[in-house]
Amino acid sequence: MKTEINKEKVKIIPLGGLEQIGMNITAFEYEDTIVVVDCGLAFPDDEMLGIDLVIPDVTYLKDNIEKVKGFVITHGHEDHIGALPYILTELNVPVYATKLTLGIIEGKLKEHNLTKSVKRKIVKYGQSINLGCFRIEFIRTNHSIADAAALAIFTPAGIIVHTGDFKIDYTPVFGDAIDLTRFGELGKKGVLALMCDSTNVMRPGFTMSEKTVGKTFDHIFAENATHRIIIATFASNVDRVQQIINSAYKYGRKVIIEGRSMVNVITTADELGYINIPENTLIDIETMKNYPDEQIVLITTGSQGESMAALSRMAASIHRKVTINPGDTVILSSTPIPGNEKAVSRVINELTRKGANVIFQDTHVSGHACQEEIKLIYSLVKPQYSIPVHGEYRHLIAQGELAQTVGVEKDNVIILSSGDVLEIGQQGAKIVDRVQAGGILVDGLGVGDVGNIVLRDRQNLAENGIIIVVMTLEKYSNQLLAGPDIVTRGFVYVRESENLIDEAKHVVSEAVYDCLNGNVNDWGKIKMVVKDSLSDYLWKKMKRNPMILPIIMEVG
Amino acid sequence: MKTEINKEKVKIIPLGGLEQIGMNITAFEYEDTIVVVDCGLAFPDDEMLGIDLVIPDVTYLKDNIEKVKGFVITHGHEDHIGALPYILTELNVPVYATKLTLGIIEGKLKEHNLTKSVKRKIVKYGQSINLGCFRIEFIRTNHSIADAAALAIFTPAGIIVHTGDFKIDYTPVFGDAIDLTRFGELGKKGVLALMCDSTNVMRPGFTMSEKTVGKTFDHIFAENATHRIIIATFASNVDRVQQIINSAYKYGRKVIIEGRSMVNVITTADELGYINIPENTLIDIETMKNYPDEQIVLITTGSQGESMAALSRMAASIHRKVTINPGDTVILSSTPIPGNEKAVSRVINELTRKGANVIFQDTHVSGHACQEEIKLIYSLVKPQYSIPVHGEYRHLIAQGELAQTVGVEKDNVIILSSGDVLEIGQQGAKIVDRVQAGGILVDGLGVGDVGNIVLRDRQNLAENGIIIVVMTLEKYSNQLLAGPDIVTRGFVYVRESENLIDEAKHVVSEAVYDCLNGNVNDWGKIKMVVKDSLSDYLWKKMKRNPMILPIIMEVG
Repeated sequence: MKTEINKEKVKIIPLGGLEQIGMNITAFEYEDTIVVVDCGLAFPDDEMLGIDLVIPDVTYLKDNIEKVKGFVITHGHEDHIGALPYILTELNVPVYATKLTLGIIEGKLKEHNLTKSVKRKIVKYGQSINLGCFRIEFIRTNHSIADAAALAIFTPAGIIVHTGDFKIDYTPVFGDAIDLTRFGELGKKGVLALMCDSTNVMRPGFTMSEKTVGKTFDHIFAENATHRIIIATFASNVDRVQQIINSAYKYGRKVIIEGRSMVNVITTADELGYINIPENTLIDIETMKNYPDEQIVLITTGSQGESMAALSRMAASIHRKVTINPGDTVILSSTPIPGNEKAVSRVINELTRKGANVIFQDTHVSGHACQEEIKLIYSLVKPQYSIPVHGEYRHLIAQGELAQTVGVEKDNVIILSSGDVLEIGQQGAKIVDRVQAGGILVDGLGVGDVGNIVLRDRQNLAENGIIIVVMTLEKYSNQLLAGPDIVTRGFVYVRESENLIDEAKHVVSEAVYDCLNGNVNDWGKIKMVVKDSLSDYLWKKMKRNPMILPIIMEVG
Repeated sequence: MKTEINKEKVKIIPLGGLEQIGMNITAFEYEDTIVVVDCGLAFPDDEMLGIDLVIPDVTYLKDNIEKVKGFVITHGHEDHIGALPYILTELNVPVYATKLTLGIIEGKLKEHNLTKSVKRKIVKYGQSINLGCFRIEFIRTNHSIADAAALAIFTPAGIIVHTGDFKIDYTPVFGDAIDLTRFGELGKKGVLALMCDSTNVMRPGFTMSEKTVGKTFDHIFAENATHRIIIATFASNVDRVQQIINSAYKYGRKVIIEGRSMVNVITTADELGYINIPENTLIDIETMKNYPDEQIVLITTGSQGESMAALSRMAASIHRKVTINPGDTVILSSTPIPGNEKAVSRVINELTRKGANVIFQDTHVSGHACQEEIKLIYSLVKPQYSIPVHGEYRHLIAQGELAQTVGVEKDNVIILSSGDVLEIGQQGAKIVDRVQAGGILVDGLGVGDVGNIVLRDRQNLAENGIIIVVMTLEKYSNQLLAGPDIVTRGFVYVRESENLIDEAKHVVSEAVYDCLNGNVNDWGKIKMVVKDSLSDYLWKKMKRNPMILPIIMEVG
């Protein structure tokens, strides 16, 4: 019997995705092998002013580059693939994914001129790849994008099942239902750990099938037969677009696709055979004017109220090709992602003001599993350990509790943080180390050149503006040759606050003269005195705290 | 029969509240009489960087000050009373309201040293006041704050009913149910126009009674008998606090009230008899340590994730007197107001991380009427005109549609914008003019000194930071005596971007020398050349657009 006990241990190291929604990336390590699951980006929090996106810190992977066998990707959403072009520039290893996922990745690599240098391989459902000590099997799941896969990672320490983002859809629009049998077979073999999507763990019941949205579209098309129909949805939800096209075809309408990311994804999906567009259905936006309103469906981006997306531009009357008219029926086929509620409301109000009839209820289903689905997966996989992933901290905790209701022992629920090094095997699991992990900010072409100090300055500038106090001193003598002058930006409307600025200048001048008359020659000290006196004055006078920046020039 | 036709017309002028949630203020005018209903503030939108609050522009009232007979207030929420201290400073007229509403207003006047100068009068339900040509009757309603009133404004042109914010609660915690009979009696007399709360017009059905929350509290107290309980809710929801105190008393717990605004409102409510606190129930926070966890309930502010509120400070471990411990039960008795979802999630995650059990479902009911309640009021009041108020534009439109289902003619639904002057009588209604209206920004002690230019600068500073280029030129000769130097804030982390800064300095120097060598002596031109060349360089190099501020000092 002794030989049956597996004493091996494997390391699981999440490098992102647990403190912050998005930026999913997890390393699996055993001896000389590291395999990385997903490589996503995160969108900036409100306080990350001016930041375009956030990518994971992969210092640990770079330090162990000789071990890294490749990236294995679960599906083609930004929070799972978006950081790839940035990371692959520094860490050129092969990428493995299903066909559509790789098609979408290819588009990103093209933009970054990486198509030639990066090795890629399509993996089919049911197929396995061997990467170092690991064998990784791709298992069919359902999600709000086609070709999503769960992964069974066969390691020397046991099988680890990673669901990726998933739902259970018995009647998917494209392809087949999730391969529940395979989850069950793995469960029979014995699974060491299940890493399962937590996004909807607070929601009871079962997520509805994507097909239910198609029926809603049919109803809306029937009821709005004489109106132009505009539908905004997620660019990557190919099945949703398919269903809109189905309804359009059924009701004799032409379809226009608008918005760059939407066009990109649908083009890829069409090339790879993931969408079925009847002939003569798609028309160019330029020819829209040749058709009456009742023969048009416009599918567009902007369902989250993103200010630069097509729908928002239509709502704000700054879209070059589409003008919203009274009588238009506009469908928002999505629910606002937390943080986007106000932006979405604003777009709805603007559209309503233009006379559009805006429909946003019952036109969306989630792509993530609810409680009953999560319990089903646990019941099939019967893992020894539960390691919840994909969710805020409270969601991870909630999944841990749910896992206990379906047989996982309390001590075997493991809540990880980014950077934790979990050593796990049949004889135990323990966080043994922490490695560098977290987000790197991308601003324009700059990666990582904006950090906490810069963000704090931006926050301060945003809230209070800046006052620059500039003066010229003579070298050696420290005589004041020019200034002090005051220039402000983002502080007050200067033309209406002349008295205030004059008084401020007076306060600063007094401070400078006091210094110079008192033979304070240390510029650092002069700057400090200027800053303190002006800061005091402004707080007393107006309870504000602008950034004060004294600059001394030297002539002589 | 001829005498029965009323040809009089009255003016209705909303001065805020229709483009923006909050800032409710509406003027009613007839000949030499103006009466103003409510005087609320709005909280700043995301793009109003650094702004504390927004108050209405009352230029029109100031221009007609001799007509203004007073403010009539429907209830004590910030979006209906919050601008009073600011406006009364400039426009000292009497304020009329119910007892609790006036009690809360009094607290605000005290903070602004206005208690002596401003005339105030308590009005009881059923009582009328005569203000110029108008008689105004206060009618009992229900809302998430006690003493809320609807107003029947008897004008020469007919009766106008203004609901204020309301719901229908047959089993209110304090006082009686809404006076539906009075609404019906007015309907029988004949009502010219109904101005009705639109907040929940998208929600079908009926809003639940406040009392249902009390039952939920009882269940939670029973289930968490051994844990300390912390409950966050809106400071002004006295009935909610009453129910928490009831549960606390029932389960033998002492109550601590924490958070400045909560303490203020409860103190006022207690003094005026709007809350019933059993003796020896309230304890001081300093004595909390003398009681075991299971004998404590802490009622606090911060249910909206407001960063400076008590609960957020507890969650972030920066509250001086309360430390969250594993096992604490924390209840968020509210739902996030649109825009606050992410902040609330963050607080929940932080509390969960500290081991607290956070409960936020089924612990709140709305204070606003849903569709069936709105239809009930319309059915009783039977107004000739519907003028929806309190809601986003889409809500106003939706109420207009609802009004038609209960008998208002389509042409008699009037959707107003702030500043519209509606002339209305039994023979017609028409927007005849527009007056100045909108929001005035308050930042610290400054009222109106931050406008669009300052906000645009703050936005630009927030997103990209600032680069200051400073140089000293000799008078007349225009010889460069010092600089150009570059100072940046919020742009890049300078220590890691030395090359970039050096190159930028080089670009700027070249531009300046080109100017001076080419005998360009116009400072405006030199500044422009510096700005353009640096801006071009940075965009090409890093796709960023910081604010560039050239400053030239003159010596000689």
